Amino acid sequence: MSDEIILPAPADFHVHVRQGKMCELVTAQVAKGGVRTAYVMPNLVPPLTSTQAVLAYKAELERIDPSVEWLMTLYLHPDVTPDEIRRAAKAGIRGVKSYPRGVTTNSNSGIEDYGVYYPVFKAMEEEGMVLNLHGEVPSDAEKNISILNAEVHFLAHLEKLAKDFPKLSIVLEHATTSSAISTVTSLPSNVACSITAHHLHLTIDEVAPQPHHYCKPLAKEPKDRKALQEAVSSGNPKFFLGSDSAPHPLSSKSPGIMAEDGHVSACAAGVYTSPILIPLVATLLESFGALDKLESFVSGNGRRFYGIPPKDGQQLRLRRTKGDDGLVKGTFKGDGVEVMPFWAGKKLGWEIVE
Amino acid sequence: MSDEIILPAPADFHVHVRQGKMCELVTAQVAKGGVRTAYVMPNLVPPLTSTQAVLAYKAELERIDPSVEWLMTLYLHPDVTPDEIRRAAKAGIRGVKSYPRGVTTNSNSGIEDYGVYYPVFKAMEEEGMVLNLHGEVPSDAEKNISILNAEVHFLAHLEKLAKDFPKLSIVLEHATTSSAISTVTSLPSNVACSITAHHLHLTIDEVAPQPHHYCKPLAKEPKDRKALQEAVSSGNPKFFLGSDSAPHPLSSKSPGIMAEDGHVSACAAGVYTSPILIPLVATLLESFGALDKLESFVSGNGRRFYGIPPKDGQQLRLRRTKGDDGLVKGTFKGDGVEVMPFWAGKKLGWEIVE
Repeated sequence: MSDEIILPAPADFHVHVRQGKMCELVTAQVAKGGVRTAYVMPNLVPPLTSTQAVLAYKAELERIDPSVEWLMTLYLHPDVTPDEIRRAAKAGIRGVKSYPRGVTTNSNSGIEDYGVYYPVFKAMEEEGMVLNLHGEVPSDAEKNISILNAEVHFLAHLEKLAKDFPKLSIVLEHATTSSAISTVTSLPSNVACSITAHHLHLTIDEVAPQPHHYCKPLAKEPKDRKALQEAVSSGNPKFFLGSDSAPHPLSSKSPGIMAEDGHVSACAAGVYTSPILIPLVATLLESFGALDKLESFVSGNGRRFYGIPPKDGQQLRLRRTKGDDGLVKGTFKGDGVEVMPFWAGKKLGWEIVE
Repeated sequence: MSDEIILPAPADFHVHVRQGKMCELVTAQVAKGGVRTAYVMPNLVPPLTSTQAVLAYKAELERIDPSVEWLMTLYLHPDVTPDEIRRAAKAGIRGVKSYPRGVTTNSNSGIEDYGVYYPVFKAMEEEGMVLNLHGEVPSDAEKNISILNAEVHFLAHLEKLAKDFPKLSIVLEHATTSSAISTVTSLPSNVACSITAHHLHLTIDEVAPQPHHYCKPLAKEPKDRKALQEAVSSGNPKFFLGSDSAPHPLSSKSPGIMAEDGHVSACAAGVYTSPILIPLVATLLESFGALDKLESFVSGNGRRFYGIPPKDGQQLRLRRTKGDDGLVKGTFKGDGVEVMPFWAGKKLGWEIVE
């Protein structure tokens, strides 16, 4: 095995770069993680439901780091009409993200019923825009739906959308279950699936005791992790990297205590991988014998699905770390914000050659 | 429904009162939670594997609070021989706790194979001692065993032990799954089951984002919580309160950062309910319509199984809270230790009449 890898422009087809001071901190880290093209999530406060708002956000990201190609998305919402879809497509916005209501960070404006959006999906199909699905249904104790089976319960919705819109490009985001992998595999080529770095490593055993590993969807059983690893190892072009890198302030990851009544707040959902992303993915793929699929997973499959070819001069060189190189040390700090990265205290097997 | 309840001496048949300064703090809280008899776990550092060590610990607990009846246990370990069992029985030690290796707090000395302990179980059967089982097998990714199904995989061991030792009193501790409830229900009357307060309330949705809700075994799906509630509602004498109240310092419940290499430590497993236990159980049972089973769950079933009758003058009076009474406010603090209780920031429906 060589000690150096050259990758055509890696892309991250699912990243959260937030707002305000957090945005200043984490937007600049995307390129440092080896990513040349970043597909940006629209779950801000308020959510990005107009072309105008998306373009203003894009300008902000370009100001912070003009070296990255920022691909933008709208937030599926009643404000997103077929007319808005046509405006968005003309403005170069690539996709629309759907959040079932209440399932993750800033999803209170999320959808409850796909039926009402069929005219929107029709317009997206005509305009060649991508539908990005957060594939979980809300928890419902009466129906025994919890964060453990919320993704499996969503798969019927995915199958129906794929059947009803055979020409719409659909991505099931951040799959975490063997059921999701087999459903996506069985569906036609207009349906693809992003996979995060952290879900290639974690299971519920590492998530339950560790708020920094808590994200939605939750990492599940070993057999599920194995299915994700096998999807990558297979080289199936439906599967590609979408990190779902989702930074939260350190305080949001601690079980805080509200002074007034002793209320103990829950931890925010999200794992932050951006600053180490491509070296991390290389390290993980090597751990399960799939390093030969690194290029297709991070540079090939997603770009082909979205029709975003790599550009000249965007290659990334990785080399094996030696000695203590590659140790991920503690938090990333910005102006008044501090974020804990995934893999803190652990050594990466690969690093970027600057 | 009356606004007052009088209970014959409530008992908690599974409690951790720890060591050192933590022991000073939490031992004194047991009676404050309404408990007159407490069955004490032996997973100290080092574990309590001799009669002598158990008796020294019991003396310590009696020094801190002589008002509580402290029932003691040995930690199943190679040091616990049949001779030791006979010594322990003579000294009034009531049970032996088995921890599969590595599954929870201070279980590194836990057992890997029950076969080697059959002579010990035989001696326990003869002496009338109780076998208390932490019913989880260790996680094993190759076999898809995780903290989600560790209890279900343990049930075959429970069934085998019950079959091989039909006269041995066996308690499956802190059941969390519908499978465990149905297995215990189907086994003969020598097999019983403790149920915690927190598992009557939590599901995985409330555990994953909240370290103060993280414990072993993990709270599972809504259908599992429903099975536990139904076991209590049924009044089946096999099921009784064992709180598994398991205090940890506040710092052990935060995702700490080790300075040297940025390593992020995991949170400790345990939910602390002792100081509010009987009012909490009353509040929870009322929430699912089983307040009429409060007496059998906290005062009757467990005492009958262990043969520990209530004593005169140990009654507990509860009354409904009014207004802001019953609010659980923040942490409990001792000399250099601070512990977050379950239910912090929330209101209990019942309180103890002093």
